[in-house]
Amino acid sequence: MAMLNECITVELGGGRGYPIWFAPLAALGSLMEECGLRRGRCILVTDANVSDRWLPASLRALQGWDTHILVLPPGEATKAAASLNHIYDKVLPAGIDRRTPVIALGGGVIGDLAGFAAATMLRGLPVVQVPTSLIAQVDSAIGGKTGINHGVGKNLVGAFHQPRLVLADTSVLATLPKLEWASGLSEVVKHALIADPALASFLESQWHKVMVREPAIVASMVMQAACIKAEIVAADEREEERRELLNFGHTFGHAIERVEGYGRFTHGEAVALGMRAALALSLRYAPEFDARHAAALVSRIPVRHRLTASDDRLSQAMRYDKKVRAGTVRLVLLRALGDAFVTACRSRCDLTFAWKAVIG
Amino acid sequence: MAMLNECITVELGGGRGYPIWFAPLAALGSLMEECGLRRGRCILVTDANVSDRWLPASLRALQGWDTHILVLPPGEATKAAASLNHIYDKVLPAGIDRRTPVIALGGGVIGDLAGFAAATMLRGLPVVQVPTSLIAQVDSAIGGKTGINHGVGKNLVGAFHQPRLVLADTSVLATLPKLEWASGLSEVVKHALIADPALASFLESQWHKVMVREPAIVASMVMQAACIKAEIVAADEREEERRELLNFGHTFGHAIERVEGYGRFTHGEAVALGMRAALALSLRYAPEFDARHAAALVSRIPVRHRLTASDDRLSQAMRYDKKVRAGTVRLVLLRALGDAFVTACRSRCDLTFAWKAVIG
Repeated sequence: MAMLNECITVELGGGRGYPIWFAPLAALGSLMEECGLRRGRCILVTDANVSDRWLPASLRALQGWDTHILVLPPGEATKAAASLNHIYDKVLPAGIDRRTPVIALGGGVIGDLAGFAAATMLRGLPVVQVPTSLIAQVDSAIGGKTGINHGVGKNLVGAFHQPRLVLADTSVLATLPKLEWASGLSEVVKHALIADPALASFLESQWHKVMVREPAIVASMVMQAACIKAEIVAADEREEERRELLNFGHTFGHAIERVEGYGRFTHGEAVALGMRAALALSLRYAPEFDARHAAALVSRIPVRHRLTASDDRLSQAMRYDKKVRAGTVRLVLLRALGDAFVTACRSRCDLTFAWKAVIG
Repeated sequence: MAMLNECITVELGGGRGYPIWFAPLAALGSLMEECGLRRGRCILVTDANVSDRWLPASLRALQGWDTHILVLPPGEATKAAASLNHIYDKVLPAGIDRRTPVIALGGGVIGDLAGFAAATMLRGLPVVQVPTSLIAQVDSAIGGKTGINHGVGKNLVGAFHQPRLVLADTSVLATLPKLEWASGLSEVVKHALIADPALASFLESQWHKVMVREPAIVASMVMQAACIKAEIVAADEREEERRELLNFGHTFGHAIERVEGYGRFTHGEAVALGMRAALALSLRYAPEFDARHAAALVSRIPVRHRLTASDDRLSQAMRYDKKVRAGTVRLVLLRALGDAFVTACRSRCDLTFAWKAVIG
């Protein structure tokens, strides 16, 4: 099925707005030039899995460019200082200048890592995000959050560095492993819950076609979900307020990943469980909320394991979240489907209550 | 001699302007609160030399704050990935949040390093620059350039991260080692040459008092020089054009440091030699320029050693400068005292010519 080329724009101040193209990978080089990037040297960062599938097509799309390729090991462990230094060591001696674009071809790990490397080499190189996973296409590649993990927690070292261009080819999602697909759906559901009842209805009615990845349905879903992210980022680039809503389920989810060990749950599974906790707590903070539709949607996201950690350890782990302010955990909750709000956690008991709803 | 509290503002878009206070160190805590930083935990990064002299006064000025102190070894070698990781390892587990300020108490190395750590922890903590060297007070603490060195070259890893506040207590300069004082004067002279004939005249007429550091003359000189930096940064925050003028003497100077080995020349000495090279070349690109005053001022800056490297190696080293674009070295030259311009290097011979003027 031929995909129409569509484009939305992330509206930012100071002429830093940028396009998100939903177009075939083959358009990469020409879209880069259209964005004012001058043909010449570029750095392409990817991982071994993505490289096997999409590097040849990417290089064809970059004909006429002098592409330096870095292929990193796949997986969350790559999102670390060692990989960052590896990129510095390979790229800095390569005769780059401040206009040399860095292309992040891959999922969230590559996007965050290569984006952060671009943010910090020569105090900022242009970055082109070419997300190849669902989570990256609807979430992580949009909005300029970049970074790496630290022993103390995820994403604790990083920078805001907006891309010059995002190119999302939804056809690449057809070959995504099932687990990653499900993980990405978690973010799609989250976007629907916090901001878009229409997307929630779409997901409800099309869930089967979503799960079998019918191309037209996938393309429509990705565009709707990416739009929500783009709008929220445009309204609040530096995560002052509105952007915090995107953390719905994440404050809980990050604690799960930290306590259960990264890897046991996918990020999406952790967020799915986190959303269950957040929904339970929403009823305590916004008792008038009818959570049935939201809960039904969240429960559709496949999660393989049950939590093994105690609510106490999970609550404790929430202290390290970046959104903690002056020692108080900040929560994103819903007061209606499509209407999220941020609140300070009133008491430790609330966290216990929320966790117990998930641990069962 | 009592110093008047004076304040200039770096005017930036989007409400990110910030004050540079010329005031006693004792005002630190109250000025931080005035800037909207809430009393609570803060991180103070300094080096062992500065700590011996100024940490007690700084801590008195931070009464009521919960100050976590990191003391690093003094010297350029500290401006490296190892120190950055040390800061991450100490600070990230310390229960910080996005409002926790990082105070950089020290010279250029501490300012750049702590500034970059602040830029990259939790994707950006507020940083308070408290420069204690001349070079930091008139140059490096102003303008948001932060970063560390990489084996390939200086400052190749970094970010733009504007401080929330700069506090320059010019009285601390009285105890600065002679070598550092002379090194800082190089940047003061540079500011005068590129943008301020009045400061050039001031330096000419007051040079003796400058060298014996007469407090009122020092205070006036620092304020004049800091003003120039603040104006240039305000006009061009991200080094698109005008800010490049600040690199007068630096493209040559960085090559000297790289080839002769960091440490043989102070940064200021390297820049002083670099300015001699740039002045020589200015006459080739702007033949009408009467360089006598400029050359006389530059020649007053004490430089201990002669260059030992060949012009060939020095020219080669200029290729790694961050301002190189598409392989062409960009030069900052003068067409008059106080009037600098940027130009692409027309031929490799020009670099040879410039270097030969310094090597003699």
